[in-house]
Amino acid sequence: MSDNVAGYEVLAEQLHERGIDVENLEARLREQVIETPSWGYGNSGTRFGVFKQPGAARDVHERLADAAKVHEVTGVCRPVALHIPWDKVDDYDALKAEAAELGVVIGAINPNVFQDPDYQFGSFGHRDGAVRDKALQHMAECAQIMQSTGSKLMSLWFADGTNYAGQADLIQRKQFFEEGLQQTHDLLPKDARMLIEYKFFEPGFYHTDIADWGLALHFARSAGERAQVLVDLGHHAQGVNIEHIVAHLLDEQALGGFHFNNRKYADDDLTTGSVNLYEVFLIYHEIENATARGRGGDIAYMIDQSHIVKPKVEAMIQSVLNIQTAYARALLVDRQALADAQSEADTVLAEEVLRSAWDTDVRPLLAQVRTDLGAAEDPLAAYRSSGYFSRIAEQRQGELEGGASWG
Amino acid sequence: MSDNVAGYEVLAEQLHERGIDVENLEARLREQVIETPSWGYGNSGTRFGVFKQPGAARDVHERLADAAKVHEVTGVCRPVALHIPWDKVDDYDALKAEAAELGVVIGAINPNVFQDPDYQFGSFGHRDGAVRDKALQHMAECAQIMQSTGSKLMSLWFADGTNYAGQADLIQRKQFFEEGLQQTHDLLPKDARMLIEYKFFEPGFYHTDIADWGLALHFARSAGERAQVLVDLGHHAQGVNIEHIVAHLLDEQALGGFHFNNRKYADDDLTTGSVNLYEVFLIYHEIENATARGRGGDIAYMIDQSHIVKPKVEAMIQSVLNIQTAYARALLVDRQALADAQSEADTVLAEEVLRSAWDTDVRPLLAQVRTDLGAAEDPLAAYRSSGYFSRIAEQRQGELEGGASWG
Amino acid sequence: MSDNVAGYEVLAEQLHERGIDVENLEARLREQVIETPSWGYGNSGTRFGVFKQPGAARDVHERLADAAKVHEVTGVCRPVALHIPWDKVDDYDALKAEAAELGVVIGAINPNVFQDPDYQFGSFGHRDGAVRDKALQHMAECAQIMQSTGSKLMSLWFADGTNYAGQADLIQRKQFFEEGLQQTHDLLPKDARMLIEYKFFEPGFYHTDIADWGLALHFARSAGERAQVLVDLGHHAQGVNIEHIVAHLLDEQALGGFHFNNRKYADDDLTTGSVNLYEVFLIYHEIENATARGRGGDIAYMIDQSHIVKPKVEAMIQSVLNIQTAYARALLVDRQALADAQSEADTVLAEEVLRSAWDTDVRPLLAQVRTDLGAAEDPLAAYRSSGYFSRIAEQRQGELEGGASWG
Amino acid sequence: MSDNVAGYEVLAEQLHERGIDVENLEARLREQVIETPSWGYGNSGTRFGVFKQPGAARDVHERLADAAKVHEVTGVCRPVALHIPWDKVDDYDALKAEAAELGVVIGAINPNVFQDPDYQFGSFGHRDGAVRDKALQHMAECAQIMQSTGSKLMSLWFADGTNYAGQADLIQRKQFFEEGLQQTHDLLPKDARMLIEYKFFEPGFYHTDIADWGLALHFARSAGERAQVLVDLGHHAQGVNIEHIVAHLLDEQALGGFHFNNRKYADDDLTTGSVNLYEVFLIYHEIENATARGRGGDIAYMIDQSHIVKPKVEAMIQSVLNIQTAYARALLVDRQALADAQSEADTVLAEEVLRSAWDTDVRPLLAQVRTDLGAAEDPLAAYRSSGYFSRIAEQRQGELEGGASWG
Repeated sequence: MSDNVAGYEVLAEQLHERGIDVENLEARLREQVIETPSWGYGNSGTRFGVFKQPGAARDVHERLADAAKVHEVTGVCRPVALHIPWDKVDDYDALKAEAAELGVVIGAINPNVFQDPDYQFGSFGHRDGAVRDKALQHMAECAQIMQSTGSKLMSLWFADGTNYAGQADLIQRKQFFEEGLQQTHDLLPKDARMLIEYKFFEPGFYHTDIADWGLALHFARSAGERAQVLVDLGHHAQGVNIEHIVAHLLDEQALGGFHFNNRKYADDDLTTGSVNLYEVFLIYHEIENATARGRGGDIAYMIDQSHIVKPKVEAMIQSVLNIQTAYARALLVDRQALADAQSEADTVLAEEVLRSAWDTDVRPLLAQVRTDLGAAEDPLAAYRSSGYFSRIAEQRQGELEGGASWG
Repeated sequence: MSDNVAGYEVLAEQLHERGIDVENLEARLREQVIETPSWGYGNSGTRFGVFKQPGAARDVHERLADAAKVHEVTGVCRPVALHIPWDKVDDYDALKAEAAELGVVIGAINPNVFQDPDYQFGSFGHRDGAVRDKALQHMAECAQIMQSTGSKLMSLWFADGTNYAGQADLIQRKQFFEEGLQQTHDLLPKDARMLIEYKFFEPGFYHTDIADWGLALHFARSAGERAQVLVDLGHHAQGVNIEHIVAHLLDEQALGGFHFNNRKYADDDLTTGSVNLYEVFLIYHEIENATARGRGGDIAYMIDQSHIVKPKVEAMIQSVLNIQTAYARALLVDRQALADAQSEADTVLAEEVLRSAWDTDVRPLLAQVRTDLGAAEDPLAAYRSSGYFSRIAEQRQGELEGGASWG
Repeated sequence: MSDNVAGYEVLAEQLHERGIDVENLEARLREQVIETPSWGYGNSGTRFGVFKQPGAARDVHERLADAAKVHEVTGVCRPVALHIPWDKVDDYDALKAEAAELGVVIGAINPNVFQDPDYQFGSFGHRDGAVRDKALQHMAECAQIMQSTGSKLMSLWFADGTNYAGQADLIQRKQFFEEGLQQTHDLLPKDARMLIEYKFFEPGFYHTDIADWGLALHFARSAGERAQVLVDLGHHAQGVNIEHIVAHLLDEQALGGFHFNNRKYADDDLTTGSVNLYEVFLIYHEIENATARGRGGDIAYMIDQSHIVKPKVEAMIQSVLNIQTAYARALLVDRQALADAQSEADTVLAEEVLRSAWDTDVRPLLAQVRTDLGAAEDPLAAYRSSGYFSRIAEQRQGELEGGASWG
Repeated sequence: MSDNVAGYEVLAEQLHERGIDVENLEARLREQVIETPSWGYGNSGTRFGVFKQPGAARDVHERLADAAKVHEVTGVCRPVALHIPWDKVDDYDALKAEAAELGVVIGAINPNVFQDPDYQFGSFGHRDGAVRDKALQHMAECAQIMQSTGSKLMSLWFADGTNYAGQADLIQRKQFFEEGLQQTHDLLPKDARMLIEYKFFEPGFYHTDIADWGLALHFARSAGERAQVLVDLGHHAQGVNIEHIVAHLLDEQALGGFHFNNRKYADDDLTTGSVNLYEVFLIYHEIENATARGRGGDIAYMIDQSHIVKPKVEAMIQSVLNIQTAYARALLVDRQALADAQSEADTVLAEEVLRSAWDTDVRPLLAQVRTDLGAAEDPLAAYRSSGYFSRIAEQRQGELEGGASWG
């Protein structure tokens, strides 16, 4: 009997004594969904260079296979986000079938309007109407791919911005963006949503057209009712309270999803929780609070990170485990005790209620949940012992024809 | 003939040759209005202590006198913002007359709902309805003072926030704030506006209820049509592009005013322009751009700073001079040349158009404008030679009965 | 049998199975020492005001009593730092005896050369030799108090800095500081050390004379061999890797101590670990690493925080518990497994080794340790049920004659 | 007669009246030297992609030609920094002669130990001795190139760092760096110096081995007496006072040089002065202050920036002009008036002394100086009208065999 299994019974008993409905808790953990990004399985780097990694996925098929492996060992990662054109194929029906065969599904479609040289000075924010039209055509193509693949989400990040004061007319760009996003909204499949991501800086160093949640919300509202905001954990200035933004957006019914990752200073795209997992816990705590108030919304939980020194699949598994941990602990918060402490302005006790949940070692619980899901008790160990990595490291030599990617 | 007078003729000739309508330029500079804050003339400090300054104003009457002196030498500072209760008097008709006699007028009324011990855990965000009511009563009193003094602006800053995760229910506080601000809006004199200020952090270190422009705009819109956003230059996270926010709010017709000051790291409340005056220039540049597009709005330009090592009146004069400088240079931007450079994506030239205006030494021009306004050619020198400071330093000994202030 | 006691046996068994020498682990935890600051028991505030708290200690005697209470329930907080002149008494022998009676000892002596109006423009950095002499006299007095109380540490923080470019000659101030600190070093009791604290900004907003660890180390080295650096967790710019500084200073044998607290943006002085306890864990991890290399040094672990919304004694207990938690988890790191992973550049595994220790719920272990020390299994609960707070809240009404403090 | 020429006479007269020795001032401006980097003339980008620019230099010969063009129009940019291996050639004597023919000289040699895949986990900090040896061999090669080209400076930047806690043993890396840098020092030509650059973060996101000036100074001192610190303006955390560091290093005789550029948030590598030129002015002011104290040192003023949206040569000229402007204004500071104001703690007047110099429009003066140097009165205009750009845009099509570069 493993540590985790032994630990589970003790933990379940303790939780039970604390008045927690363990069965319901486990049910919620089994229902957790974390979407992994196809581009997270390929090479990436910093502006100083890309170090090619053994086994890095070279095309959408290899990326889907890696995502399926992550889902196999974690049990909660069925959807896979695609990036167009990197994941472009001729036959999306076949791609959908391929995904199904692998046990995964196509998640959010991510248009790319930043890599083509035409976009050097912007996409929807570009002064030249021809470039804006080109970007819109790409949106139309992506909407079509959503139809073909059954994706219900278009996830939009724009690199648009400027590097120097005077470079562009900021108000004019704002109006161009309003127009482009409204037109994109009209292109969406009827049962689909579009999520607008904001980012503080980079690659624009002077200004970014969608720099913060306030701008993202503005553009979402001007675009249409199926547009919402996407929160990427690495896209804020230092010191910003992200969970406060989350709470606000939820109460406004405007939060559509997350991009999980972590950072120490800028948009470092590190594995989620590597710097401060407590922040992710507090975010889930706010979501639970909003849910209890009937404002939980329909949130897509997606990972978006870029690992330079970690093997791709392992890094993804680590992030998934960390996110599961944060969520499980947030579910352990005694909400009644918290409300009671708050109502007496007992800051110390209120914080202790959170800490008590946070301090709980939920590994045995998650091992149990994963076992129940048919996944691995210890996903990293299972992955390492599966031989998957040595297989792909051997197979994936050289470039693939037609293989496109970030790095 | 002074340097400035000689310099003026050369400069005017140069500007004329650059195609600038100098007469119109000077007219605009004569129309500039900068409001100074009564609390900027009294003692203040850091959390480590308040160093009493000789001559610091002790009550509203001394503060008005100092503000009048600043207006006398600069010519552009007629309005004076009041802070209630620090500037509370029994007879506001008399106060209005006193101001008129001094050559100034009452500007924005600033309620204070943070200093009373009842507000330790918030004002409009407080869980206790009695505290929220108390804050609302204070707003009603301030609205009454606006009626009495002819003030058309209520300028609202809230210290509300929390220091620890779990301390409060963030969504509940949001809803309380929506309610309180809406009720405040209903109390306003019919021809008056309310400006909602945001602040990144401090004195709340975990969360601040109105932390950024997005939240301020949300609360302004939910409050009513005469509510707008106030931008304080020191209330942003590092790296935020303030002029971008300004451009956005102007296009949304939601920018009500500024609090000018400068900072290096946090809300340092230094004299405006002491760290980076170019930022103020870029802000005025965006305002001019919006104005040219018919989105200029009705903006109150107010100073809000707190000087620990500089004599109060001199520090205020310095800030006024810096703001005048930034504005004058922004008016020199060749907007047509800029638009031309932008339309060709000529980033270098576009920036050079701004720099060319920025590099111009406008001191002779401003000296002329001030002379035309009947103010001092060199306000700091005039103030220093006026003997005003030695007079107040001698007269203002000890505390005044009923004198209230920050420090 | 309490949760913790039951949990202890399970945990001890698990740790044992992981190859950990639980007995030795507990011995190290029993030897942990955390010094609490006298000023942490009195009122404090932000620059916007001080909210008086019921039960806040009003003089050194009340502060010692509170510190003794914290030690009573936690078992690891015997030393108490004093702040001169706030804690000044006529008879230090009596104070020492009073401390002994309470079960505590006098820890670091903290001179104050920032609050007196003479220090408005600096202490050791002041241009006026008379002010520098005054500061040195204060150091002499503090050295004398160290002799009387048996304190082996002088803990030096300077508020010295400037607010504006040009305000002072930075090189001249540097040389004044070198001189003042060297003279201070000569005043120290022969078996005592002086710790030089650095701080990024505040209350100086343009420059701070001892702004970072590099400057603190420079001044320590120029002062003498018994001068070392003190690291306050809240005194760095955003994104700085504190544990890296700790590792470097340890290898240089120049780390003298810590001031524990936490912050989200600036020097927020929140309870330790409230924002990111993982950082404290990583610091202890570096200390353990240095210790294993024979570079552990003689480190004073002190709390320095200032609570605005939490009752003082409870806030102190919370910080102590968090620091214990971080330390206990750091002791659980499997150093051999870590070294092995590092030697194979296995970043994922190396991080997992840390996370595995970090994820362990050490509350039962710490409860046991505290029980063994004769302290409380659950210090916060014990404190709350002791009636201490209601007693001091009732007794400590009004001001005490001669009572001095921050707020 | 151009504006500048007319303006020059008025300005010279004004400066003369302010007691400034204009002749000496111009002599100092003519002696200013700004080194431009070969890599600043080639393509570069962000991690999201590199947009190829028309006319971007493809090999060292084209880079030298561009640098010569910048020197031709500005008159102050004779030295050109090389980057090895990007600028590697077979025959350095020929390269030296080629430079001489173009009117430029070889400046600092910049080794590159970050791009080769072997350096993925570090160079001098790498755990594997073979990698450290490889890096040292590269240093030996660069020292040899210094001999051949007559370069007196080795300029060292290391990308070494880690991305995750636990990834490496920080103390071990420190010791490896001490060793590697000491060995590098021994390789230097006898009359040459090595400059050690520090950088806050990127591409290491968890820790950087040489993260701040304190670490750079430590390694310089442990390396040997001809090692000094290099300050890159973009390599600090937000809010750091760079001129304070400069003043400290000068007084320690440890400042070897600068990398000029500007940033708004991270290491944005924008043209110098585009965000806040006042900071560059304050840096030159501190250098002048140190120089007056006999601590001026031997400083290499180098540009290091990377332009994504600006044509390379124009961007370089802009930076040069901005640096000249900052320096000229710093030379105008009335040092006696400043010292007088400081000695009376007159912060307002002290700052005004700086501002008065800063506000001066020095363009006519610099135009005159450049004319006297045989360069262009208006370098940007001269460059644009020279036809150089259209020539290189046409000639530089496709890749060059053997051409290596960043992007």
